[in-house]
Amino acid sequence: MQVTLKELAERLKLAPSTVSRALKGHPDISEETQLRVRRLAEELHYAPNVMATNLRCQKSNFIAVVVPEIRRDFYAAFVNGAEKIFRENGYFPVLFQSCEDFRQEEAICRSIGVSRMGGVLVSVAQTTHFFQHFYSLQEQGIPLLFFDRIAGELDTDRVITDDFMGAYEVVRHLIVQGYRKIVHYAGVQHLQVAQKRRLGYLQALQDFHIPVEEDMIVYCNTAADVSLYTPQLMQSLAPDALFAVDDDMAVEVLSVLKEMGYRIPDDLAVCGFSGDNITKVTEPGLTSVDRHAEDMGEISARLLLERIQMPHKFPTVTKMIKPALVVRKSTERPVRPLE
Amino acid sequence: MQVTLKELAERLKLAPSTVSRALKGHPDISEETQLRVRRLAEELHYAPNVMATNLRCQKSNFIAVVVPEIRRDFYAAFVNGAEKIFRENGYFPVLFQSCEDFRQEEAICRSIGVSRMGGVLVSVAQTTHFFQHFYSLQEQGIPLLFFDRIAGELDTDRVITDDFMGAYEVVRHLIVQGYRKIVHYAGVQHLQVAQKRRLGYLQALQDFHIPVEEDMIVYCNTAADVSLYTPQLMQSLAPDALFAVDDDMAVEVLSVLKEMGYRIPDDLAVCGFSGDNITKVTEPGLTSVDRHAEDMGEISARLLLERIQMPHKFPTVTKMIKPALVVRKSTERPVRPLE
Repeated sequence: MQVTLKELAERLKLAPSTVSRALKGHPDISEETQLRVRRLAEELHYAPNVMATNLRCQKSNFIAVVVPEIRRDFYAAFVNGAEKIFRENGYFPVLFQSCEDFRQEEAICRSIGVSRMGGVLVSVAQTTHFFQHFYSLQEQGIPLLFFDRIAGELDTDRVITDDFMGAYEVVRHLIVQGYRKIVHYAGVQHLQVAQKRRLGYLQALQDFHIPVEEDMIVYCNTAADVSLYTPQLMQSLAPDALFAVDDDMAVEVLSVLKEMGYRIPDDLAVCGFSGDNITKVTEPGLTSVDRHAEDMGEISARLLLERIQMPHKFPTVTKMIKPALVVRKSTERPVRPLE
Repeated sequence: MQVTLKELAERLKLAPSTVSRALKGHPDISEETQLRVRRLAEELHYAPNVMATNLRCQKSNFIAVVVPEIRRDFYAAFVNGAEKIFRENGYFPVLFQSCEDFRQEEAICRSIGVSRMGGVLVSVAQTTHFFQHFYSLQEQGIPLLFFDRIAGELDTDRVITDDFMGAYEVVRHLIVQGYRKIVHYAGVQHLQVAQKRRLGYLQALQDFHIPVEEDMIVYCNTAADVSLYTPQLMQSLAPDALFAVDDDMAVEVLSVLKEMGYRIPDDLAVCGFSGDNITKVTEPGLTSVDRHAEDMGEISARLLLERIQMPHKFPTVTKMIKPALVVRKSTERPVRPLE
C-alpha cells in the first residue's frame, strides 16, 4: 500500500500543505524542512498522486500539447521528446491535433481553459490568422509556449529552428555541388517558418551571384500540390535541383520525378527540410535539414516547466535551435565543382 | 450571436433538461416533442456548446484515445479516422500515448476516470499483463472500446483486424511466387495480434505442405532486434523470404539486407504487415497487408458513440476488419511458379 501525502504529514508533524510545498522545493519552506520531508518521502517510497494533486490545486499537472498533425514525423518526434521531460517531472501531457483547422484550434484552447491545464505547448495551424484564443489562455494565467510555428504578436516563450540558416546551408550545398537552376517549393508565407526558409534560399543564391527568377519559387500548401505542379514545371523551367520546404513535399517530388523517368541525383537533385525518418529510407536517401525534433521537444518542455514554476521570474525567452544539414545521395552529383 | 440551450427552451416553453434530452434522442421524450425541438434548433442554428455540456453533465463530450505510440503510422492514421467521426458528432478526442509502458497506461486510465471522460478507445501497451486499470474504468461506467491490441478478458466492444487471414494471404502469396524458405519475424506473443499472424503464417505453410521448422520463427520486440538478428540468421538459415510482423520491422529488414549487399526481390523477398505509408516509398516498394487504419478509426469511433448513447441497448460487439494484401516489388520474383 502506498503512503499518502496526509500520512507523510502526520508522521512529520507538519501540515500537508507544508509537506507538499517542501516536496516542490517552494522557497517559503526552509532547506532543513525540505531535506527532512524528502528523506522520509524517499524512505516510504512516497509517489505524488498526480490526479489528486490535480483535483486539489488550482494549477494542474496536465500539460496540453497542440500540434497541427500528429501524423507528421516532426511533430510526433517533438511530442516524444517533450513527453519524456514531462513524465520525469511528474507532469502529464495531453495531446491535441488541430488538423490545420483554425476552428478546431479555438475549440481546443477553450477546452484547455475550462479544464485548467497547467501549461500549453503549441504549434499554430496553417489556417490561423487571428490569435484571440491564445490571448484568452494568457489572460487566464495559463503559461503558453509556441514552438516551430509561432504567433508572432504574442509575448510568450518560444522554441524555434534557425530556418533561415538551415535553408541557406542546404542551398549553398546544392550550389557547391554544381547545381544552378534551383527551384524552391515554398510553403504558406504567413507562417514565419516558411518565410524564413524562402529568405535563406534567396540569400544563398544571391551570395553566389546566381540570378534569382521569381518563377523559380513555387508556392504549395500540400504534397498534392507538388504532384500537380511538378510535371509542368519540369517542362517550363527545366531545373537541375528542387528544394522543398518540408520532407513530405520532398518525398512527393522524388516519387513524381522517378515516375517521370528522371534519375536522381544524376539528372536532378532533390532535398527537403526537417530530418523526418522517411528521408533515410527513400531511394536515393534524401538530403534534408535535421531540426532535432526530439531535442526541441525536450527543450520546450523544460522551458515551459520553468515558466510554470516561476511565472514572472524572467522575461520571455526565444530559443533558436541550430539545425544540421544531412547530406544523402539525392544531392550528390559527380559534376564540375565550383571553381 | 449563437442561441443557447436556455433560450431554445424558453421559446419552446420546455425545461432545458427536456430540450437537451430531446436533442439527444432520449427515449423518455416523445417523438413529437423531439421533432418540435429539432426543428427549432435547426431553424435557429443551435449548436451545442461542448465545453459547457461538459461542465454541466456527468457525461463528458471528451473521448480519450490511448495508443501505444503516436509515431507509428498505423496509430496516427487510426486517430485521424476516429477524430473525423468524433468531430462530426460534437465530440472532442484527447490523445494519450502509453509509450508501451504499463505504468504510464495505468496513470492515463486514472486521469480518464478523474476527468470523467465520455468514453475511451484504447490499444493496449506491449508491457501490460494486468488489466485492473481498465476494469476500474468499466466500474465507473465509462464506455471502453479496444482496437487492434485488445484485453481479451474484458467484456467490451472491440474492433480488430483479421490478422490470421492477413498473414495467411501474404505467406500464400510468397509461396505462389516460388519462395520456400520463409522466415517469420514474430512479435510479442502475449499480444493476440502477433499470435494470430504467427498462426496464419504456420497455416499457410502447412496447407502448401511446406515443412515448418521452429527456428524459422524469430521473436522480436523492436526494429533494433531485427538489425541484431538478421546477419546471423542469413548465415544459419539462408532463407529466401522474410515476413515481418509489422512494417517497422520490415523496413528495418530491408535496410539491413540492402546494406549487406542482397538484392531485393532477386535474392530474397521481404514483406511486412500494416500498410504504413512508408511501404510506398522504400526501394523496392514493400509488400504489406493493409489494415485500413483510417477506416478502423472511423468504425471504432462510430461504435463507441453508439455505446455511449445506448450503454445497455445491445450486447458487446467485436468487429473484425478484413485486411487487404498489397503486392509491391519487394516480393515479385521472376521464378518458376507453383505447378
